Amino acid sequence: MFYHDGGKLQYKVEVTTPNPVFAKMLQQAIGGQEGEMRVALQYLFQAWNARGPKKYRDMLLETGTEELAHIEMLATAVALNLEGAAPALQEQAAKDNPAVAAVLGGMDPRHYLSTGLGAMAADSNGVPFTGAWIVGSGNLAADMYANVMAESTGRALATRLYEFTDDPGMKDMLSFMIARDTMHQQQWLAVLEELGGHEGVLPIPNSFPQEQENSEFNYTFLSTQKDGQPLTEGRWTQGPSLDGKGEYRQQVAEPLGGEPQLAPPVPEAHAQLEQGSQAAPANQDK
Amino acid sequence: MFYHDGGKLQYKVEVTTPNPVFAKMLQQAIGGQEGEMRVALQYLFQAWNARGPKKYRDMLLETGTEELAHIEMLATAVALNLEGAAPALQEQAAKDNPAVAAVLGGMDPRHYLSTGLGAMAADSNGVPFTGAWIVGSGNLAADMYANVMAESTGRALATRLYEFTDDPGMKDMLSFMIARDTMHQQQWLAVLEELGGHEGVLPIPNSFPQEQENSEFNYTFLSTQKDGQPLTEGRWTQGPSLDGKGEYRQQVAEPLGGEPQLAPPVPEAHAQLEQGSQAAPANQDK
Amino acid sequence: MFYHDGGKLQYKVEVTTPNPVFAKMLQQAIGGQEGEMRVALQYLFQAWNARGPKKYRDMLLETGTEELAHIEMLATAVALNLEGAAPALQEQAAKDNPAVAAVLGGMDPRHYLSTGLGAMAADSNGVPFTGAWIVGSGNLAADMYANVMAESTGRALATRLYEFTDDPGMKDMLSFMIARDTMHQQQWLAVLEELGGHEGVLPIPNSFPQEQENSEFNYTFLSTQKDGQPLTEGRWTQGPSLDGKGEYRQQVAEPLGGEPQLAPPVPEAHAQLEQGSQAAPANQDK
Amino acid sequence: MFYHDGGKLQYKVEVTTPNPVFAKMLQQAIGGQEGEMRVALQYLFQAWNARGPKKYRDMLLETGTEELAHIEMLATAVALNLEGAAPALQEQAAKDNPAVAAVLGGMDPRHYLSTGLGAMAADSNGVPFTGAWIVGSGNLAADMYANVMAESTGRALATRLYEFTDDPGMKDMLSFMIARDTMHQQQWLAVLEELGGHEGVLPIPNSFPQEQENSEFNYTFLSTQKDGQPLTEGRWTQGPSLDGKGEYRQQVAEPLGGEPQLAPPVPEAHAQLEQGSQAAPANQDK
Amino acid sequence: MFYHDGGKLQYKVEVTTPNPVFAKMLQQAIGGQEGEMRVALQYLFQAWNARGPKKYRDMLLETGTEELAHIEMLATAVALNLEGAAPALQEQAAKDNPAVAAVLGGMDPRHYLSTGLGAMAADSNGVPFTGAWIVGSGNLAADMYANVMAESTGRALATRLYEFTDDPGMKDMLSFMIARDTMHQQQWLAVLEELGGHEGVLPIPNSFPQEQENSEFNYTFLSTQKDGQPLTEGRWTQGPSLDGKGEYRQQVAEPLGGEPQLAPPVPEAHAQLEQGSQAAPANQDK
Amino acid sequence: MFYHDGGKLQYKVEVTTPNPVFAKMLQQAIGGQEGEMRVALQYLFQAWNARGPKKYRDMLLETGTEELAHIEMLATAVALNLEGAAPALQEQAAKDNPAVAAVLGGMDPRHYLSTGLGAMAADSNGVPFTGAWIVGSGNLAADMYANVMAESTGRALATRLYEFTDDPGMKDMLSFMIARDTMHQQQWLAVLEELGGHEGVLPIPNSFPQEQENSEFNYTFLSTQKDGQPLTEGRWTQGPSLDGKGEYRQQVAEPLGGEPQLAPPVPEAHAQLEQGSQAAPANQDK
Repeated sequence: MFYHDGGKLQYKVEVTTPNPVFAKMLQQAIGGQEGEMRVALQYLFQAWNARGPKKYRDMLLETGTEELAHIEMLATAVALNLEGAAPALQEQAAKDNPAVAAVLGGMDPRHYLSTGLGAMAADSNGVPFTGAWIVGSGNLAADMYANVMAESTGRALATRLYEFTDDPGMKDMLSFMIARDTMHQQQWLAVLEELGGHEGVLPIPNSFPQEQENSEFNYTFLSTQKDGQPLTEGRWTQGPSLDGKGEYRQQVAEPLGGEPQLAPPVPEAHAQLEQGSQAAPANQDK
Repeated sequence: MFYHDGGKLQYKVEVTTPNPVFAKMLQQAIGGQEGEMRVALQYLFQAWNARGPKKYRDMLLETGTEELAHIEMLATAVALNLEGAAPALQEQAAKDNPAVAAVLGGMDPRHYLSTGLGAMAADSNGVPFTGAWIVGSGNLAADMYANVMAESTGRALATRLYEFTDDPGMKDMLSFMIARDTMHQQQWLAVLEELGGHEGVLPIPNSFPQEQENSEFNYTFLSTQKDGQPLTEGRWTQGPSLDGKGEYRQQVAEPLGGEPQLAPPVPEAHAQLEQGSQAAPANQDK
Repeated sequence: MFYHDGGKLQYKVEVTTPNPVFAKMLQQAIGGQEGEMRVALQYLFQAWNARGPKKYRDMLLETGTEELAHIEMLATAVALNLEGAAPALQEQAAKDNPAVAAVLGGMDPRHYLSTGLGAMAADSNGVPFTGAWIVGSGNLAADMYANVMAESTGRALATRLYEFTDDPGMKDMLSFMIARDTMHQQQWLAVLEELGGHEGVLPIPNSFPQEQENSEFNYTFLSTQKDGQPLTEGRWTQGPSLDGKGEYRQQVAEPLGGEPQLAPPVPEAHAQLEQGSQAAPANQDK
Repeated sequence: MFYHDGGKLQYKVEVTTPNPVFAKMLQQAIGGQEGEMRVALQYLFQAWNARGPKKYRDMLLETGTEELAHIEMLATAVALNLEGAAPALQEQAAKDNPAVAAVLGGMDPRHYLSTGLGAMAADSNGVPFTGAWIVGSGNLAADMYANVMAESTGRALATRLYEFTDDPGMKDMLSFMIARDTMHQQQWLAVLEELGGHEGVLPIPNSFPQEQENSEFNYTFLSTQKDGQPLTEGRWTQGPSLDGKGEYRQQVAEPLGGEPQLAPPVPEAHAQLEQGSQAAPANQDK
Repeated sequence: MFYHDGGKLQYKVEVTTPNPVFAKMLQQAIGGQEGEMRVALQYLFQAWNARGPKKYRDMLLETGTEELAHIEMLATAVALNLEGAAPALQEQAAKDNPAVAAVLGGMDPRHYLSTGLGAMAADSNGVPFTGAWIVGSGNLAADMYANVMAESTGRALATRLYEFTDDPGMKDMLSFMIARDTMHQQQWLAVLEELGGHEGVLPIPNSFPQEQENSEFNYTFLSTQKDGQPLTEGRWTQGPSLDGKGEYRQQVAEPLGGEPQLAPPVPEAHAQLEQGSQAAPANQDK
Repeated sequence: MFYHDGGKLQYKVEVTTPNPVFAKMLQQAIGGQEGEMRVALQYLFQAWNARGPKKYRDMLLETGTEELAHIEMLATAVALNLEGAAPALQEQAAKDNPAVAAVLGGMDPRHYLSTGLGAMAADSNGVPFTGAWIVGSGNLAADMYANVMAESTGRALATRLYEFTDDPGMKDMLSFMIARDTMHQQQWLAVLEELGGHEGVLPIPNSFPQEQENSEFNYTFLSTQKDGQPLTEGRWTQGPSLDGKGEYRQQVAEPLGGEPQLAPPVPEAHAQLEQGSQAAPANQDK
């Protein structure tokens, strides 16, 4: 169950100079692939579905709940960056001034048309947030890597937003968010360490008996270079594997399966006759 | 530029007993979030956008190209599992037999209706593949974690498919794919090792000066527990951080920002009058 | 069955000064959440699925058909606002002039690239129309509220477009559309009045026996304020309920359920071993 | 900012007989159009964007936060209904038994394949949740109707789930949720009453000067019946309008605009020559 | 502008034995890629955007309007196939009978949960209709081929539905629809004939001066076979081209461009330092 | 199985003057409806699912593989057009200069925020690529028309991009791509010729016995003009049909089916009582 405290923000959100273009860019951090809606819901679903040690469920709940506060901060930042945007639009439009179109082009039209100058559950192009991004695999280690990835792309996004703006309030807010992303990267990786690090958790899932995987290809880098000359050498082409269970090697990929042969079409699916479909079925006679 | 070799498969794909239900489940490995379309396109886009050392671009190209062959194998497996499916459907439907509905329920109707018994660019529920899953962040370390995550959830999926089927050909094919996923996990993690491991790559992006992030909160686990009693202790609440740049600690989250105050609605956005919207704008006078 | 009359428009659509930026904004009224494709299809599906008194089916059909004419008007308005847009683009692009980018930014590139200067089934950000918005619940009262909502957000959108443009033809067209939205709000609410108003239709569905709902919580406002101090008083915290079947009160929300306990992972789902998954299944022996 | 209390549930969630088919159906109440993710996020975004009297912002926050607890309850219910599902699948699949396909058909394959038997951010067909459903219009009255609609279709869904199951724990949980939906319908309608009821809030937005809408068509029901014979009479065809500002009447719809004339294609858009496109542009000469 | 005639259907729709599984399959013909919503909206948008000879605009309007009647017929067929479905479900579920799950698996749960046994704007997997399918390119010939394609996949779908059902009413309805698809294929191809056939319309667009396309590659079949041995000979590898403007030939594809070199990352985008990103930007000094 | 040759491009890709606005427009040719991801995947899926003569499977594989190289070229072109884009943004933003917003408006913000100046699997509005576009019908002729359509809209798109840019490198690259589209149109049409042309392949599917389609309506153009006066005469209203199997004629459309009658709602679906729903079901007694 969840609680709020009257809308007080986790960290202060101040905007000196409202900028509707920046409001649009902030949307990426709300409803984009790298955004806070994704991580909040991802951590919460992982918590709700957690099977296994309770401490990880609890931890996911702690941080999933924190991320809700981040959406709130960003939504507030969007609204503040949009203050006063519409009248400018209208006045300028009245003048048929090219500069107006410029601002308009940079602003998300739905910020005015659909929300009356508020935040949306969408990315910086107005593409709606989708639940398809949310990863809750039922495998703790896979989930942790999904979370590391989300916080890595999320922190990259936040630093890019930081570089873009000169508004001191926005820089301060982003400085806080970048710090939180640092910690969250550390946090999910710490779980992986606690679970035994590379040797303990890999390959993921570690509960599948490795003798059942094809042992000729599980530590081999395959080169698909047409000329049969592998292009790269690196940590992944020789030496012990990171999980301590194999030895890296490199090999040129070759087709081990032949050409597949599919049966002719069944009559009911009505391919063209030239595809070898038999005469049409007699379904109609019944 | 790309080449094929006449449709010969990377590994053999044989189906003893076609099973349209398994065909449906295999779709998850083609067009689902954990599937091969995602990784193939993700690695290729990462290669095409690669800025920095050429060896990583080459490596991404090698493996992205390999993944195209995996889509091909799975698409073939789907088609083979669907062989003969439609006539059964039709005959049974004719009999108005409850067992028919059973098979129908388990089969994706679009395998018959839309493709005439072939594979689709969709997941196991028929939800179309989306480019929204593809991560190519421009940051090599973030991309590597995205790839580890994709191969972790991908291998989990493959082991679940393996458990589900008893067809020896399908088990053999999946045994190969599970092995490839093992290697691919190893491979992306090896890049991260080569780049310096946790201490070298973290926090991601490592090019953002950490003195600009809020230093009070970048190694602190925040508890959002209502009663102010943190729920968990772990590697992430004390001791040196994994990047060697801080010390973990734990703290109860508190609202550091006050309640936000948004300005009243602008007249042009036509809120209700009770929201404090001013009189209607003068636009109509023109 | 449906008819047209040779493409004659329901109301005149004239554009004095084509404006590709306004064309883009008009798309929201075609294919956006608040747009005419949604209401046209929503009313028609509600009509086609209507079970119960024929008069409501007929009424839905009457208005659903009218809305088709509104899509037609708006599509025409988009095409007229795009007249001549492309050559300007090209010429300006040739000059590498910043003002060009301005216009381009404001124009939807797909208006030129995908349609050759015509309307699309998409919103003002080019996000495609989705059938996911269409509500036809099988419950007449729920559907009427869905329709009131659609006409309320639709009229808000139309007034915002009205404020944005100074083109007299566009203002005239929108003045007609705003009027139709007024009537359509009235119309769906009139059905609810005819069905008995709040006391007759609530709670929706009114066919579910209220003695089966939890009677402790069906007229109680729950406060989720962390400090246990409800924040608001209003019509909804005391006095008789609007349906005349209860008395409003307010209460602080408390967790009535304990912490959920999920079983450990099943082996076939291949969680990590540390999650308490048993040994791997014996599937491989078969 | 938000808090949790260690995962304790708002109301108890117990499942006597796990049923993976019911787990699939419950997904509609999590990630479907009528589900709790929609209302939770809708109320929270409306709160964060609220401009105008603070009491409505607070109220939205109170209830948006409550809805988060409902997602949690439903996710738990999904996980409990899936307990033990996979082994059954596997065993039955091993037997190649038609009854297996039956269960499989009814189960969402992604519950096993993607989540290891947990809840997803998707509807009962596995279609991902989309932010496109979330309405936060910036107009308080429009938002309230959006909320009434969401709670009406939501309560209809909950009663249908209630009818479907015989599990006493599930019926008890749904009985609580149905009660909450009753209150939430009452609550949003109470705001509309407080704002002045039909006469006060209509037409929405009430801040647009009605003299600017076309006064011939704002209280007129238009019949689009081909034969020019209106089909229905009702509260909406005569008598005073609900907002007290007009008189309903009925009229046969006629085309008031002529046939639109679009200009010939611009050369840069490369229509076919037969469409009257001029000779190709000279772009290449530059 | 559009009209209806009181909901009378274009062709009779009768169902002898309601079948919820067939209701689900019919959804593909309503809201699927091959369905009637697509063609109805596609032809109407093409009509509304039509630039050039009026006769083609008129023709598109005639047939777009007809297709609306097809959606209506199919929606009615869905509703009739669902009659009585829910009680069966509930009763069977009560018995915890495997046969129930079978029927449930075959039925779309949203037909019961979301619509109360009516049609939806979705395909046979419940995936919502999307405006992304609608093609209105502004080029008449391209549009005609888009329409031929839609009617070809549409007729294939209709024949597959015809094979699946034994209900005489459904077979009769589909027999009508299959006939209409035959005519519509003929009709769009007739436009292409009228425009000059292959020699007149190709290449599309025919208004682009062919001297500006690369004349080495516009009639050459390129083989991408790895071993440099083209695999196929056919009408497309020799002889005069269909447009009469070239001669087919075949050639092995070779890379004519070298390896691309992208510049190092810009500092503001915060790649990893190892990617050669310069020192961090000076933005932080402000 | 697939191969690459170290990232060498099929044709050279050079950009003299990077233009982030053009980068955005090029995205349409990558991930848009008319783009290369669609055709690459469409041809490959058609190949993998091909049932019937092997030569067509091979041909689809040849060209599907070629299209992968086109995605690669375009992704490279996007990255090159973005070179240097971000610093400009930041500097200009610092100056709060309206000209900045102009450039920003024209640039896709995700090119900077999500990819660090690289290509995305999305269209020119940032809408993600969707597998829903991919057509692989199992019917060879239907697939060929789908391919002709894709190459027709694709070539139209390429010519529009060609007109837009003045960069000689971009014009050269597009000249190559336009040529390939010419050939690909020719190629798919050549298959249709080889299969017998209109008389051989029509109606599609040609394996459905035409005596089972309603013979009154399969060569009749139906006019849905309200006044009963057909609007058009053309090749499609008289003379022999293109398939040589009928005679075109024209007729006014009339409703041949009556008004549908749906049964009253079932009690379990909880319509409103006024819809004639019976008393609530007895489910609660259990």
